Amino acid sequence: MDFYPVAIEKLIEEFAKLPSIGKKTAQRLCLHVLNLPKEEVEEFANALIQARGTIKYCSICGNYTDKDPCAICGNPNRDKTQVCVVEQPKDIMTMERVREFNGVYHVLHGNISPMQGRGPQDIRIRELVARMSGDIREVIVATNPNIEGEATAMYIAKILKPLDVMVTRIAAGIPVGGDLEYADEVTLSKALEGRKQI
Amino acid sequence: MDFYPVAIEKLIEEFAKLPSIGKKTAQRLCLHVLNLPKEEVEEFANALIQARGTIKYCSICGNYTDKDPCAICGNPNRDKTQVCVVEQPKDIMTMERVREFNGVYHVLHGNISPMQGRGPQDIRIRELVARMSGDIREVIVATNPNIEGEATAMYIAKILKPLDVMVTRIAAGIPVGGDLEYADEVTLSKALEGRKQI
Repeated sequence: MDFYPVAIEKLIEEFAKLPSIGKKTAQRLCLHVLNLPKEEVEEFANALIQARGTIKYCSICGNYTDKDPCAICGNPNRDKTQVCVVEQPKDIMTMERVREFNGVYHVLHGNISPMQGRGPQDIRIRELVARMSGDIREVIVATNPNIEGEATAMYIAKILKPLDVMVTRIAAGIPVGGDLEYADEVTLSKALEGRKQI
Repeated sequence: MDFYPVAIEKLIEEFAKLPSIGKKTAQRLCLHVLNLPKEEVEEFANALIQARGTIKYCSICGNYTDKDPCAICGNPNRDKTQVCVVEQPKDIMTMERVREFNGVYHVLHGNISPMQGRGPQDIRIRELVARMSGDIREVIVATNPNIEGEATAMYIAKILKPLDVMVTRIAAGIPVGGDLEYADEVTLSKALEGRKQI
Protein backbone atom coordinates (compact mmCIF):
# COMPACT_ATOMS: atom_id res chain seq x y z
CA MET A 1 0.00 0.00 0.00
CA ASP A 2 2.74 2.44 0.86
CA PHE A 3 5.15 3.14 -1.94
CA TYR A 4 8.37 3.64 -0.04
CA PRO A 5 11.40 1.68 -1.20
CA VAL A 6 12.15 -1.37 0.96
CA ALA A 7 15.09 0.24 2.78
CA ILE A 8 12.89 3.15 3.85
CA GLU A 9 10.02 0.88 4.93
CA LYS A 10 12.48 -1.16 6.93
CA LEU A 11 13.93 1.87 8.75
CA ILE A 12 10.46 3.25 9.48
CA GLU A 13 9.54 -0.14 10.91
CA GLU A 14 12.67 -0.15 13.11
CA PHE A 15 11.92 3.32 14.45
CA ALA A 16 8.31 2.36 15.09
CA LYS A 17 9.47 -0.54 17.29
CA LEU A 18 10.86 1.95 19.83
CA PRO A 19 8.63 2.80 22.78
CA SER A 20 6.41 5.89 22.32
CA ILE A 21 7.30 6.17 18.60
CA GLY A 22 4.24 5.79 16.37
CA LYS A 23 4.08 5.20 12.62
CA LYS A 24 3.93 8.89 11.72
CA THR A 25 6.82 9.88 13.99
CA ALA A 26 8.83 6.92 12.69
CA GLN A 27 8.25 8.18 9.15
CA ARG A 28 9.41 11.68 10.08
CA LEU A 29 12.51 10.35 11.84
CA CYS A 30 13.33 8.18 8.83
CA LEU A 31 13.05 11.07 6.37
CA HIS A 32 15.20 13.12 8.74
CA VAL A 33 17.88 10.41 8.66
CA LEU A 34 17.80 10.30 4.83
CA ASN A 35 18.70 13.99 4.79
CA LEU A 36 21.64 13.65 7.18
CA PRO A 37 25.25 13.44 6.02
CA LYS A 38 26.32 9.81 5.62
CA GLU A 39 28.92 10.10 8.39
CA GLU A 40 26.33 11.23 10.93
CA VAL A 41 24.10 8.25 10.15
CA GLU A 42 27.09 5.95 10.53
CA GLU A 43 27.90 7.59 13.85
CA PHE A 44 24.34 6.95 15.04
CA ALA A 45 24.44 3.32 13.90
CA ASN A 46 27.80 2.89 15.61
CA ALA A 47 26.52 4.41 18.84
CA LEU A 48 23.75 1.79 18.85
CA ILE A 49 26.17 -1.10 18.32
CA GLN A 50 28.70 0.31 20.80
CA ALA A 51 26.18 0.93 23.55
CA ARG A 52 24.64 -2.52 23.23
CA GLY A 53 28.02 -4.19 22.78
CA THR A 54 30.14 -2.60 25.51
CA ILE A 55 27.62 -1.99 28.26
CA LYS A 56 27.23 -4.67 30.90
CA TYR A 57 26.05 -4.83 34.49
CA CYS A 58 28.39 -3.97 37.37
CA SER A 59 29.05 -7.23 39.25
CA ILE A 60 28.67 -5.43 42.58
CA CYS A 61 25.69 -3.08 42.26
CA GLY A 62 24.04 -4.16 38.98
CA ASN A 63 24.23 -0.71 37.39
CA TYR A 64 25.01 -0.30 33.69
CA THR A 65 28.73 0.11 33.20
CA ASP A 66 31.50 -0.22 30.64
CA LYS A 67 34.04 -1.39 33.23
CA ASP A 68 33.71 -3.69 36.25
CA PRO A 69 33.26 -2.54 39.00
CA CYS A 70 31.34 0.52 37.83
CA ALA A 71 32.52 4.13 38.32
CA ILE A 72 30.55 4.45 41.58
CA CYS A 73 31.51 1.11 43.17
CA GLY A 74 35.13 1.64 42.10
CA ASN A 75 35.34 5.18 43.51
CA PRO A 76 37.39 5.16 46.78
CA ASN A 77 35.71 8.41 47.88
CA ARG A 78 32.23 6.88 48.00
CA ASP A 79 30.97 5.74 51.39
CA LYS A 80 30.73 1.94 51.17
CA THR A 81 28.82 1.72 54.47
CA GLN A 82 25.63 3.15 52.95
CA VAL A 83 23.82 1.24 50.22
CA CYS A 84 20.90 2.79 48.38
CA VAL A 85 18.58 0.19 46.85
CA VAL A 86 16.81 1.18 43.64
CA GLU A 87 14.62 -0.64 41.14
CA GLN A 88 16.34 0.36 37.89
CA PRO A 89 19.69 1.73 36.68
CA LYS A 90 17.94 4.95 35.61
CA ASP A 91 17.01 5.55 39.27
CA ILE A 92 20.71 5.82 40.08
CA MET A 93 21.00 8.74 37.66
CA THR A 94 18.02 10.38 39.35
CA MET A 95 19.59 9.93 42.79
CA GLU A 96 22.97 11.19 41.59
CA ARG A 97 21.37 14.38 40.36
CA VAL A 98 20.40 15.22 43.97
CA ARG A 99 24.11 15.36 44.87
CA GLU A 100 23.38 14.59 48.52
CA PHE A 101 24.09 10.89 48.58
CA ASN A 102 27.68 9.72 48.68
CA GLY A 103 27.15 6.03 49.35
CA VAL A 104 26.89 3.21 46.85
CA TYR A 105 23.92 1.56 45.11
CA HIS A 106 22.20 -1.73 44.59
CA VAL A 107 19.98 -2.17 41.55
CA LEU A 108 17.19 -4.72 41.96
CA HIS A 109 16.26 -4.72 38.26
CA GLY A 110 12.59 -4.85 39.10
CA ASN A 111 10.28 -5.04 42.06
CA ILE A 112 8.13 -7.58 43.86
CA SER A 113 4.69 -7.79 42.30
CA PRO A 114 2.49 -10.72 43.34
CA MET A 115 -0.13 -9.45 40.87
CA GLN A 116 2.29 -9.99 38.00
CA GLY A 117 3.83 -13.08 39.53
CA ARG A 118 7.18 -11.43 40.27
CA GLY A 119 8.60 -12.67 43.59
CA PRO A 120 11.80 -11.90 45.53
CA GLN A 121 13.67 -14.57 43.55
CA ASP A 122 13.04 -12.64 40.30
CA ILE A 123 14.94 -9.53 41.38
CA ARG A 124 18.45 -9.03 42.81
CA ILE A 125 17.53 -9.56 46.48
CA ARG A 126 19.84 -12.56 46.89
CA GLU A 127 22.76 -10.40 45.68
CA LEU A 128 21.75 -7.68 48.15
CA VAL A 129 21.79 -10.09 51.08
CA ALA A 130 25.18 -11.39 49.92
CA ARG A 131 26.62 -7.86 50.14
CA MET A 132 25.64 -7.52 53.82
CA SER A 133 28.90 -8.85 55.21
CA GLY A 134 30.98 -6.50 57.34
CA ASP A 135 31.07 -2.80 56.53
CA ILE A 136 27.49 -1.95 55.62
CA ARG A 137 25.76 0.12 58.30
CA GLU A 138 22.67 1.28 56.48
CA VAL A 139 20.50 0.20 53.59
CA ILE A 140 18.36 3.02 52.19
CA VAL A 141 15.46 1.59 50.22
CA ALA A 142 14.62 3.97 47.38
CA THR A 143 12.18 1.83 45.43
CA ASN A 144 9.28 3.69 43.85
CA PRO A 145 6.58 4.83 46.30
CA ASN A 146 3.86 2.72 44.70
CA ILE A 147 2.37 -0.65 45.70
CA GLU A 148 5.12 -2.80 44.21
CA GLY A 149 7.88 -0.51 45.49
CA GLU A 150 6.44 -0.51 49.02
CA ALA A 151 6.01 -4.28 48.99
CA THR A 152 9.61 -4.61 47.87
CA ALA A 153 10.77 -2.24 50.63
CA MET A 154 8.87 -4.22 53.28
CA TYR A 155 10.33 -7.47 52.05
CA ILE A 156 13.88 -6.09 52.13
CA ALA A 157 13.37 -4.72 55.66
CA LYS A 158 12.12 -8.12 56.82
CA ILE A 159 14.90 -10.13 55.24
CA LEU A 160 17.72 -7.82 56.41
CA LYS A 161 16.46 -7.43 60.00
CA PRO A 162 18.25 -10.54 61.37
CA LEU A 163 21.49 -9.33 59.76
CA ASP A 164 21.80 -6.43 62.18
CA VAL A 165 21.84 -3.71 59.53
CA MET A 166 19.75 -0.55 59.69
CA VAL A 167 17.17 -0.44 56.91
CA THR A 168 15.66 2.95 56.09
CA ARG A 169 13.06 4.06 53.57
CA ILE A 170 13.20 7.39 51.74
CA ALA A 171 10.57 9.65 53.25
CA ALA A 172 7.25 10.90 52.07
CA GLY A 173 7.76 13.95 49.94
CA ILE A 174 7.59 12.09 46.70
CA PRO A 175 3.92 11.97 45.70
CA VAL A 176 2.62 8.47 46.41
CA GLY A 177 1.73 6.52 43.28
CA GLY A 178 4.37 8.43 41.35
CA ASP A 179 7.58 7.38 39.69
CA LEU A 180 11.06 8.24 40.99
CA GLU A 181 12.09 9.44 37.56
CA TYR A 182 9.72 12.40 37.63
CA ALA A 183 10.53 13.67 41.12
CA ASP A 184 12.28 17.04 41.24
CA GLU A 185 15.60 17.43 43.08
CA VAL A 186 14.16 19.32 46.06
CA THR A 187 11.49 16.67 46.68
CA LEU A 188 14.02 13.90 46.39
CA SER A 189 16.39 15.74 48.70
CA LYS A 190 13.59 16.11 51.30
CA ALA A 191 12.80 12.44 50.92
CA LEU A 192 16.41 11.48 51.58
CA GLU A 193 16.62 13.77 54.59
CA GLY A 194 13.43 12.50 56.24
CA ARG A 195 14.15 8.78 55.82
CA LYS A 196 12.93 6.56 58.69
CA GLN A 197 13.90 3.11 59.93
CA ILE A 198 11.45 0.39 58.85
CA MET B 1 27.31 15.50 36.12
CA ASP B 2 25.51 12.47 34.75
CA PHE B 3 27.12 9.18 35.60
CA TYR B 4 26.32 7.13 32.55
CA PRO B 5 29.18 5.29 30.87
CA VAL B 6 30.46 7.03 27.73
CA ALA B 7 28.77 4.62 25.31
CA ILE B 8 25.39 5.30 26.92
CA GLU B 9 25.92 9.07 26.97
CA LYS B 10 26.85 8.90 23.32
CA LEU B 11 23.73 6.95 22.32
CA ILE B 12 21.48 9.25 24.35
CA GLU B 13 23.09 12.20 22.58
CA GLU B 14 22.49 10.59 19.17
CA PHE B 15 18.82 9.93 19.95
CA ALA B 16 18.42 13.49 21.25
CA LYS B 17 19.65 14.84 17.90
CA LEU B 18 16.54 13.47 16.21
CA PRO B 19 13.66 15.91 15.69
CA SER B 20 11.04 15.95 18.49
CA ILE B 21 13.18 13.70 20.76
CA GLY B 22 14.12 15.45 24.01
CA LYS B 23 16.75 14.45 26.56
CA LYS B 24 14.35 12.41 28.70
CA THR B 25 12.88 10.50 25.75
CA ALA B 26 16.38 9.92 24.39
CA GLN B 27 17.35 8.40 27.73
CA ARG B 28 14.32 6.12 27.71
CA LEU B 29 14.99 5.02 24.13
CA CYS B 30 18.63 4.31 24.98
CA LEU B 31 17.75 2.16 28.00
CA HIS B 32 15.22 0.35 25.82
CA VAL B 33 17.95 -0.42 23.30
CA LEU B 34 20.27 -1.75 26.04
CA ASN B 35 17.62 -4.30 26.93
CA LEU B 36 17.10 -5.52 23.36
CA PRO B 37 18.72 -8.68 22.01
CA LYS B 38 22.02 -7.87 20.30
CA GLU B 39 20.71 -9.00 16.89
CA GLU B 40 17.80 -6.57 17.02
CA VAL B 41 20.11 -3.65 17.76
CA GLU B 42 22.32 -4.70 14.86
CA GLU B 43 19.27 -4.90 12.63
CA PHE B 44 18.30 -1.36 13.61
CA ALA B 45 21.84 -0.06 13.00
CA ASN B 46 21.88 -1.83 9.65
CA ALA B 47 18.54 -0.36 8.64
CA LEU B 48 19.99 3.11 9.27
CA ILE B 49 23.08 2.45 7.15
CA GLN B 50 21.07 0.71 4.42
CA ALA B 51 18.44 3.42 4.15
CA ARG B 52 20.98 6.23 3.98
CA GLY B 53 23.28 4.23 1.71
CA THR B 54 20.91 2.81 -0.89
CA ILE B 55 18.30 5.52 -1.17
CA LYS B 56 18.77 8.16 -3.87
CA TYR B 57 16.54 10.53 -5.80
CA CYS B 58 14.68 9.38 -8.91
CA SER B 59 16.27 11.21 -11.86
CA ILE B 60 12.83 11.89 -13.35
CA CYS B 61 10.56 12.92 -10.47
CA GLY B 62 12.97 13.49 -7.58
CA ASN B 63 11.25 11.01 -5.25
CA TYR B 64 13.25 8.79 -2.89
CA THR B 65 14.01 5.51 -4.61
CA ASP B 66 16.35 2.54 -4.51
CA LYS B 67 16.31 2.13 -8.29
CA ASP B 68 16.23 4.67 -11.11
CA PRO B 69 13.65 5.51 -12.37
CA CYS B 70 11.52 5.02 -9.28
CA ALA B 71 8.66 2.51 -8.96
CA ILE B 72 6.08 5.12 -10.01
CA CYS B 73 7.97 6.65 -12.98
CA GLY B 74 8.96 3.16 -14.16
CA ASN B 75 5.43 1.77 -13.94
CA PRO B 76 3.96 1.43 -17.50
CA ASN B 77 0.43 1.57 -16.07
CA ARG B 78 0.80 5.07 -14.68
CA ASP B 79 -0.57 7.92 -16.79
CA LYS B 80 2.50 9.89 -17.91
CA THR B 81 0.33 12.75 -19.24
CA GLN B 82 -0.58 13.94 -15.74
CA VAL B 83 2.13 15.27 -13.42
CA CYS B 84 1.36 16.08 -9.81
CA VAL B 85 3.80 18.59 -8.34
CA VAL B 86 4.54 18.26 -4.61
CA GLU B 87 6.96 19.92 -2.23
CA GLN B 88 8.45 16.85 -0.55
CA PRO B 89 8.78 13.09 -1.13
CA LYS B 90 6.53 12.46 1.88
CA ASP B 91 3.72 14.26 0.04
CA ILE B 92 3.82 11.55 -2.63
CA MET B 93 3.02 8.96 0.03
CA THR B 94 0.13 11.11 1.20
CA MET B 95 -1.22 11.42 -2.35
CA GLU B 96 -0.78 7.70 -3.03
CA ARG B 97 -2.88 6.89 0.01
CA VAL B 98 -5.86 8.59 -1.68
CA ARG B 99 -5.72 5.97 -4.47
CA GLU B 100 -7.41 8.31 -6.93
CA PHE B 101 -4.42 9.64 -8.80
CA ASN B 102 -2.80 7.45 -11.44
CA GLY B 103 -0.42 9.96 -12.98
CA VAL B 104 3.21 10.61 -12.09
CA TYR B 105 4.87 13.07 -9.73
CA HIS B 106 7.38 15.86 -9.59
CA VAL B 107 9.04 16.65 -6.26
CA LEU B 108 10.21 20.26 -5.87
CA HIS B 109 12.17 19.56 -2.69
CA GLY B 110 11.01 22.82 -1.18
CA ASN B 111 8.92 25.84 -2.01
CA ILE B 112 9.41 29.46 -2.99
CA SER B 113 9.77 31.64 0.07
CA PRO B 114 11.00 35.20 -0.47
CA MET B 115 10.90 35.69 3.31
CA GLN B 116 13.52 32.98 3.73
CA GLY B 117 15.36 33.90 0.57
CA ARG B 118 14.33 30.76 -1.33
CA GLY B 119 13.66 31.54 -5.01
CA PRO B 120 12.58 29.37 -7.98
CA GLN B 121 16.24 28.49 -8.67
CA ASP B 122 16.50 26.80 -5.26
CA ILE B 123 13.85 24.17 -5.95
CA ARG B 124 13.35 21.74 -8.84
CA ILE B 125 11.41 24.11 -11.13
CA ARG B 126 14.01 23.95 -13.90
CA GLU B 127 13.65 20.15 -13.94
CA LEU B 128 9.86 20.52 -14.09
CA VAL B 129 10.05 22.80 -17.13
CA ALA B 130 12.47 20.36 -18.78
CA ARG B 131 9.88 17.58 -18.45
CA MET B 132 7.26 19.57 -20.36
CA SER B 133 8.18 18.21 -23.81
CA GLY B 134 5.54 16.25 -25.65
CA ASP B 135 3.14 14.04 -23.74
CA ILE B 136 2.25 16.03 -20.66
CA ARG B 137 -1.32 17.37 -20.79
CA GLU B 138 -1.81 18.52 -17.22
CA VAL B 139 0.26 19.66 -14.28
CA ILE B 140 -1.58 19.39 -10.96
CA VAL B 141 0.07 21.62 -8.38
CA ALA B 142 -0.32 20.00 -4.96
CA THR B 143 2.01 22.23 -2.95
CA ASN B 144 0.86 22.94 0.61
CA PRO B 145 -2.05 25.42 0.89
CA ASN B 146 -0.02 28.00 2.83
CA ILE B 147 1.70 31.22 1.72
CA GLU B 148 4.85 29.56 0.34
CA GLY B 149 2.91 26.76 -1.32
CA GLU B 150 0.51 29.20 -2.99
CA ALA B 151 3.37 31.42 -4.16
CA THR B 152 5.06 28.35 -5.60
CA ALA B 153 1.83 27.31 -7.36
CA MET B 154 1.42 30.79 -8.85
CA TYR B 155 4.99 30.81 -10.09
CA ILE B 156 4.63 27.37 -11.71
CA ALA B 157 1.39 28.43 -13.40
CA LYS B 158 3.08 31.55 -14.80
CA ILE B 159 6.18 29.79 -16.06
CA LEU B 160 4.29 26.89 -17.67
CA LYS B 161 1.62 29.04 -19.35
CA PRO B 162 3.65 29.69 -22.57
CA LEU B 163 4.33 25.95 -22.87
CA ASP B 164 0.70 25.19 -23.70
CA VAL B 165 0.12 22.80 -20.81
CA MET B 166 -2.88 22.92 -18.49
CA VAL B 167 -1.88 23.84 -14.94
CA THR B 168 -4.38 23.02 -12.19
CA ARG B 169 -4.31 23.52 -8.44
CA ILE B 170 -5.80 21.06 -5.95
CA ALA B 171 -9.03 22.54 -4.64
CA ALA B 172 -10.00 24.06 -1.37
CA GLY B 173 -11.04 21.36 1.00
CA ILE B 174 -7.71 21.19 2.74
CA PRO B 175 -7.84 23.74 5.55
CA VAL B 176 -5.78 26.76 4.52
CA GLY B 177 -2.60 27.22 6.54
CA GLY B 178 -2.42 23.48 7.06
CA ASP B 179 0.05 20.86 5.99
CA LEU B 180 -0.66 18.21 3.35
CA GLU B 181 0.66 15.50 5.63
CA TYR B 182 -2.19 15.91 8.10
CA ALA B 183 -5.06 15.98 5.61
CA ASP B 184 -7.38 12.98 5.77
CA GLU B 185 -8.07 10.88 2.68
CA VAL B 186 -11.58 12.21 2.09
CA THR B 187 -10.47 15.84 2.22
CA LEU B 188 -7.59 15.12 -0.12
CA SER B 189 -9.89 13.24 -2.46
CA LYS B 190 -12.27 16.24 -2.53
CA ALA B 191 -9.36 18.54 -3.19
CA LEU B 192 -8.21 16.45 -6.15
CA GLU B 193 -11.73 16.28 -7.57
CA GLY B 194 -12.36 20.02 -7.37
CA ARG B 195 -9.07 21.16 -8.90
CA LYS B 196 -9.27 24.30 -11.08
CA GLN B 197 -7.10 25.73 -13.84
CA ILE B 198 -4.84 28.58 -12.62
